[in-house]
Amino acid sequence: TVDGHRLWQSLMDLAEIGAYDDEHTGLRGVNRLALTDADAAGRRQVIAWMERAGLTVRVDRMGNIYGRREGTDPTAAPVLTGSHIDSVATAGAFDSCLGVLGGIEVVRTLDERGISTRRPIEIGVFTEEEGVRFGTDMLGSAVAAGRLSLEYAHALTDRDGRTLGGELTRTGFHGPADVRLDPPYAYVECHIEQGPVLAENDVQVGVVTGVQGISWQEITIHGRAAHAGTPPTHLRADAGLAAARIGVQLRTMVDSGAYGELRATVGHLAVHPDLTNIVPARAELTVDLRNPDDARMARAEEDLAAFLRTLEDGTPGLTFTTRRMAKTAYVPFDERVRKVIAQAADDHGLAHIPLLSGAGHDAQEIAALCPTAMVFVRGEYHGISHNPREYSTPEACTHGVDVLATTLLRLATQ
Amino acid sequence: TVDGHRLWQSLMDLAEIGAYDDEHTGLRGVNRLALTDADAAGRRQVIAWMERAGLTVRVDRMGNIYGRREGTDPTAAPVLTGSHIDSVATAGAFDSCLGVLGGIEVVRTLDERGISTRRPIEIGVFTEEEGVRFGTDMLGSAVAAGRLSLEYAHALTDRDGRTLGGELTRTGFHGPADVRLDPPYAYVECHIEQGPVLAENDVQVGVVTGVQGISWQEITIHGRAAHAGTPPTHLRADAGLAAARIGVQLRTMVDSGAYGELRATVGHLAVHPDLTNIVPARAELTVDLRNPDDARMARAEEDLAAFLRTLEDGTPGLTFTTRRMAKTAYVPFDERVRKVIAQAADDHGLAHIPLLSGAGHDAQEIAALCPTAMVFVRGEYHGISHNPREYSTPEACTHGVDVLATTLLRLATQ
Ligand SMILES: NC(=O)NCCC(=O)O
Ligand SMILES: NC(=O)NCCC(=O)O
Repeated sequence: TVDGHRLWQSLMDLAEIGAYDDEHTGLRGVNRLALTDADAAGRRQVIAWMERAGLTVRVDRMGNIYGRREGTDPTAAPVLTGSHIDSVATAGAFDSCLGVLGGIEVVRTLDERGISTRRPIEIGVFTEEEGVRFGTDMLGSAVAAGRLSLEYAHALTDRDGRTLGGELTRTGFHGPADVRLDPPYAYVECHIEQGPVLAENDVQVGVVTGVQGISWQEITIHGRAAHAGTPPTHLRADAGLAAARIGVQLRTMVDSGAYGELRATVGHLAVHPDLTNIVPARAELTVDLRNPDDARMARAEEDLAAFLRTLEDGTPGLTFTTRRMAKTAYVPFDERVRKVIAQAADDHGLAHIPLLSGAGHDAQEIAALCPTAMVFVRGEYHGISHNPREYSTPEACTHGVDVLATTLLRLATQ
Repeated sequence: TVDGHRLWQSLMDLAEIGAYDDEHTGLRGVNRLALTDADAAGRRQVIAWMERAGLTVRVDRMGNIYGRREGTDPTAAPVLTGSHIDSVATAGAFDSCLGVLGGIEVVRTLDERGISTRRPIEIGVFTEEEGVRFGTDMLGSAVAAGRLSLEYAHALTDRDGRTLGGELTRTGFHGPADVRLDPPYAYVECHIEQGPVLAENDVQVGVVTGVQGISWQEITIHGRAAHAGTPPTHLRADAGLAAARIGVQLRTMVDSGAYGELRATVGHLAVHPDLTNIVPARAELTVDLRNPDDARMARAEEDLAAFLRTLEDGTPGLTFTTRRMAKTAYVPFDERVRKVIAQAADDHGLAHIPLLSGAGHDAQEIAALCPTAMVFVRGEYHGISHNPREYSTPEACTHGVDVLATTLLRLATQ
């Protein structure tokens, strides 16, 4: 078992980098958007810890960081673990940091026990997993796995028009290493659940069976500005109203049950010129759809597109443009790795259940390269996440990293 | 008749102050929010024109500017005309500037013809008529007329937290003159229609019968942030979705016909934290309601409040706070002044119709002090306004100011 105190201390230390006082929860939150100064400071801290733990660090051309502990067999492919340390703007301390710091804690523990493994163990820290700064999530791991190109990623821009490539250079994380990852032997990622299921079932650990499909698009609505008081209502082409109709329609689709386990979120919404007495000329919103069933996801996307056409046809002067931001299919995880995880949980006397992930994770990208699965750690408060109230107890974190340690050790000796 | 060329030139000159290139229309727009540097520059230009036209200028403690041309009878109350020169952020050249510059053009014409009047003629330039910077429209004239207090107005803040009082001082427009206006003999304001009715009826001039009621409120919705992918939909308290439901409900209310001529606009809408994969924790929107019928307006406000309670009751974790921004009842204009305007239009051979104003105007505030009415000038493109496409032809502007001149002359000789 790992040193839970040391693990917890590193979680709290990292959470100080990018910390802010959240006025709505009254708590201390984390704002460490990818490739900001705060993220760069966090990365430097993680590299310092990696180096202190004896790892050899390399940074690739996407800013992905890998810390490597050599194995005894120089020809053996490594076992990879890791996650990311970029956060949303209103985050807690746990989302993903647990995977990175847990990996480092496993290495420290192996070193202290004098345990060497046949296979190298590597810890990956992937760039822009959240996707909230540059618009595409799991970006660093998707490029490492070859699903997205380096050129695509470097050209992405944030809301201020800064490119990801430029920000890599600015922060000093445009590394020299090749971005395409040589297939590891296996990948295991430890992460908080970010949902209520483990707590509801009163178990400590989730053995993740896969990740549901994620579809992100940005919809821009072009209408016509008008004075709020004068032109008759039927002459309006109100872009803000159209945005509102989309939000309500998405919930109607979810509630209909016709799309299975569909979830839909309009997280970003802005109108222009955004003034009390002007009918909005334009609106911009994002649509985040989730579905464990790819066919039902496709149907939801088609029906949303048809709804936009209906709005367009119904209101002269209203047009829509949509931009695909991100799209991943349902990704099932490897049966064999899941068994190793479940066995490790049993060894530690921890109750566990199989669980589908509602959130996207770097693991779903690396799954294209090698057998992959994840360990989920239970969260408090219905597993609230992407919020300063996000919390997992020290015990829960330790349990998850214990399972990770045993799993990595077992895979690395194969 | 006035000098249409000189009038047009001054409209175009003033439109250069605060001009910007509007990327959506490809046109040059005007952004001269109240008490910004651009507004201050515009005010200085107007004062320079007033002084060149021989007017005595005073500025009051709300920044309202008055230029006075003396009459022959030192005891006679003045005839007041005017409007405002602050604009929305995406404005054209005409909204309200026509009333101020038209007034100056009338004075120039009287001077050239050597015409003196028994009563003084004053031109008022009122502060923050648009209400989009500090949240309450017709603000300067409402304080001048005594409906709102100077303290209330000075304490209002913009989105960056700057007070109106502070901005008055910063721009040098916190004048020494008393803000409470001595009742003029009459008030006449010339303004673009900002609607399609004059063009549809193919007439040149509108004789305004009154201004419909205006209700502005800001609604803040407190929900709960959540990850877009993980918690079940029924656990959400989605503030953005609630905002969308309000927008759609308002249009349903308008379309129902149950509130007469109700118009409803959500012009400002923002969600927080405004990120793709986070259910909005908070949303803020403005609701602009218009109704010529005060009882129906009251019913619409009550039914909206009831709708908010229904949303609150239906979704645990969702709460609403509302803040009244502005509220004016239906204001009828004076019959006698309307007759003088109609007669003036007849004298100039201009077709005219009576017309209710959909937009708020300083005239509705000054109407509390003295007999008041307005002259409306026809606009192109369905009378689009609060938009760089706003346009009235030089002929239309000249017609309106001709009518204004004859009306002022007639009233000032009474
Ligand atoms: N785990 C996590 O929050 N990932 C961000 C991508 C997503 O929105 O699911
Ligand atoms: N005329 C005008 O645009 N006034 C602004 C106040 C309103 O929204 O009606």
